[in-house]
Amino acid sequence: MTLLSEINEQPERIRSLLASQKKTVERIAVEIQKRDIRYIFLAARGTSDNAGRYANYLLGALNGLPLALATPSLFTYYKQPPKLKNALVVGISQSGKSPDIVSVLEEGRRQGCATLAITNESESSLASYADFLIDIRAGAEKAVAATKTYTTELMSVAMLSAALRGHKKQWDELGRVAAWMKETLKQSDFIAQASQRYRYIDQTVVLGRGFNYATAFEWALKLKELTYIIAEPYSSADFAHGPIAMVESGYPVFAVAAKGKVFLSMLAMLERLRSDIDAELVVISNDKRALSLAQVPLRIPTDVPEWVSPIVGILPAQLFAYHLTRAKGYDTEQPRSIRKVTETR
Amino acid sequence: MTLLSEINEQPERIRSLLASQKKTVERIAVEIQKRDIRYIFLAARGTSDNAGRYANYLLGALNGLPLALATPSLFTYYKQPPKLKNALVVGISQSGKSPDIVSVLEEGRRQGCATLAITNESESSLASYADFLIDIRAGAEKAVAATKTYTTELMSVAMLSAALRGHKKQWDELGRVAAWMKETLKQSDFIAQASQRYRYIDQTVVLGRGFNYATAFEWALKLKELTYIIAEPYSSADFAHGPIAMVESGYPVFAVAAKGKVFLSMLAMLERLRSDIDAELVVISNDKRALSLAQVPLRIPTDVPEWVSPIVGILPAQLFAYHLTRAKGYDTEQPRSIRKVTETR
Repeated sequence: MTLLSEINEQPERIRSLLASQKKTVERIAVEIQKRDIRYIFLAARGTSDNAGRYANYLLGALNGLPLALATPSLFTYYKQPPKLKNALVVGISQSGKSPDIVSVLEEGRRQGCATLAITNESESSLASYADFLIDIRAGAEKAVAATKTYTTELMSVAMLSAALRGHKKQWDELGRVAAWMKETLKQSDFIAQASQRYRYIDQTVVLGRGFNYATAFEWALKLKELTYIIAEPYSSADFAHGPIAMVESGYPVFAVAAKGKVFLSMLAMLERLRSDIDAELVVISNDKRALSLAQVPLRIPTDVPEWVSPIVGILPAQLFAYHLTRAKGYDTEQPRSIRKVTETR
Repeated sequence: MTLLSEINEQPERIRSLLASQKKTVERIAVEIQKRDIRYIFLAARGTSDNAGRYANYLLGALNGLPLALATPSLFTYYKQPPKLKNALVVGISQSGKSPDIVSVLEEGRRQGCATLAITNESESSLASYADFLIDIRAGAEKAVAATKTYTTELMSVAMLSAALRGHKKQWDELGRVAAWMKETLKQSDFIAQASQRYRYIDQTVVLGRGFNYATAFEWALKLKELTYIIAEPYSSADFAHGPIAMVESGYPVFAVAAKGKVFLSMLAMLERLRSDIDAELVVISNDKRALSLAQVPLRIPTDVPEWVSPIVGILPAQLFAYHLTRAKGYDTEQPRSIRKVTETR
């Protein structure tokens, strides 16, 4: 079971990434700060795009950097890329190969912008167009569904945030992530049992907000890739603007509600779903009010701070998707119709 | 049937918006060009967010302006907004009331940025924080599902693009939009019949790319709000990066494939879905190759240029959602669990 072993490998990968790349990331931060950067322009697809969503909130909130997610087709099909003056152009891709992501970095360099690649392949074309490179050091990822490259991409972004601020408390908290992950992975047997209840679902929505908007997207993506259920991610605010109309009694709603600044807003949504609509809830949280509303509570350690909670909080989601795939009798290693490296333009 | 009459009202609303606001938009464009704008920072929710997706592609491709979609919770819950130096801060909201969208414009003004509101309510709080105002002139929208405020928001963005470039050909093409819309609306009876076939679907994916990425999102949103089916929108590129695994023989896939620069990439995806997977296809297009692959072809006029195709191409989608709602026996005017104005923070 390559997928399960890659899920379990994550604490160790995170520990070694932090140890081996901290100096590099600090050096990159110093160089970036010499440039006149007004915003980040970031290109990514699939799982890496979800790491980009985390960067959007994290670098916005803690580093004051606005972030625009690139629309790669403007660079490839339309050949009408925007003017990127004063942007730091970032590409995230585990393989470093997807032509559309590479073309955004290439154009950034052509326009004279600073460019940064976050990738598992330091010899890739993506890396070749980058002034700065963060090697996520995930080791070869063999399962088609990305897990350890996602958490190491998140960790790389978190390290960049800490380095840009030069914030000792942030670095200390990053030093605890591997242990929090290890603690969280102990729930594997519980999740294997609990996921049985969802053997026959064919659709769900996945809610998250703020830093964990990314977690909702990545949980949904794992469910779609592995279990083939329609799992649509939402911020709880966007969800209230229309899609909540779909939910009726018994409808399964998955949610990520880590303690922090958006927690009460998530809690209010969970209460509304449970009391008013009688929805079925699977909740990842470290707050007992949220966990107590769930038919299936998935825990992360109580003291995980909100800003790193996506790195820890995705683990129960990965395990849930893995075990539900087995419960449904599907192949966890080789999902149908997708390949490990998808090369889109 | 308020919803149907609002759908049918759109050509006239577009015509009058163009006639009454062209001078205003041109004046705004002159003022914007005096400022040192590096990128657009745009806040919106729901249907208006889909108008923002259109702006992302259109202003990027035709005006060279990168666009960052705001993450409103950074302004409200986190109270850690990014630094918006050199941004044009834009809010799109039909009601102009949603506190999170208003707070982004308020912060933009506080930081000394140029601010623009695109709204149906010129006396709203959103408008009060705007240096520049485009009144979309949609008239009162009574149906809960937004239709005419969406197309007038798109038209406002398109007018801004034409004004910023001072491009006569763009203005001429905008002058033809109302007639193209009117032509497209003639399919209502056909769509009423064709939608019967989908009486029992409970999920779908909606594909679009480039300018019509927005159309895919808006079609999906109308389906979710009105018919309660799970309809998930994707760019065909993101779809290939994993979610395509969900599709099996007979699975309904809705797609928007207007002629233009991304057409061949959409066509290749439709051919793959039809030939390799035997999916069921409902396709909005003005190219007969794409239409001939569909079980249900929905036409827009052949000569609609790609950049305005989202304003015309959403009409068959609105009609489809309306008629499918009736086929399913639901209330087209008052969807469950949502209100006309959703005030999120």
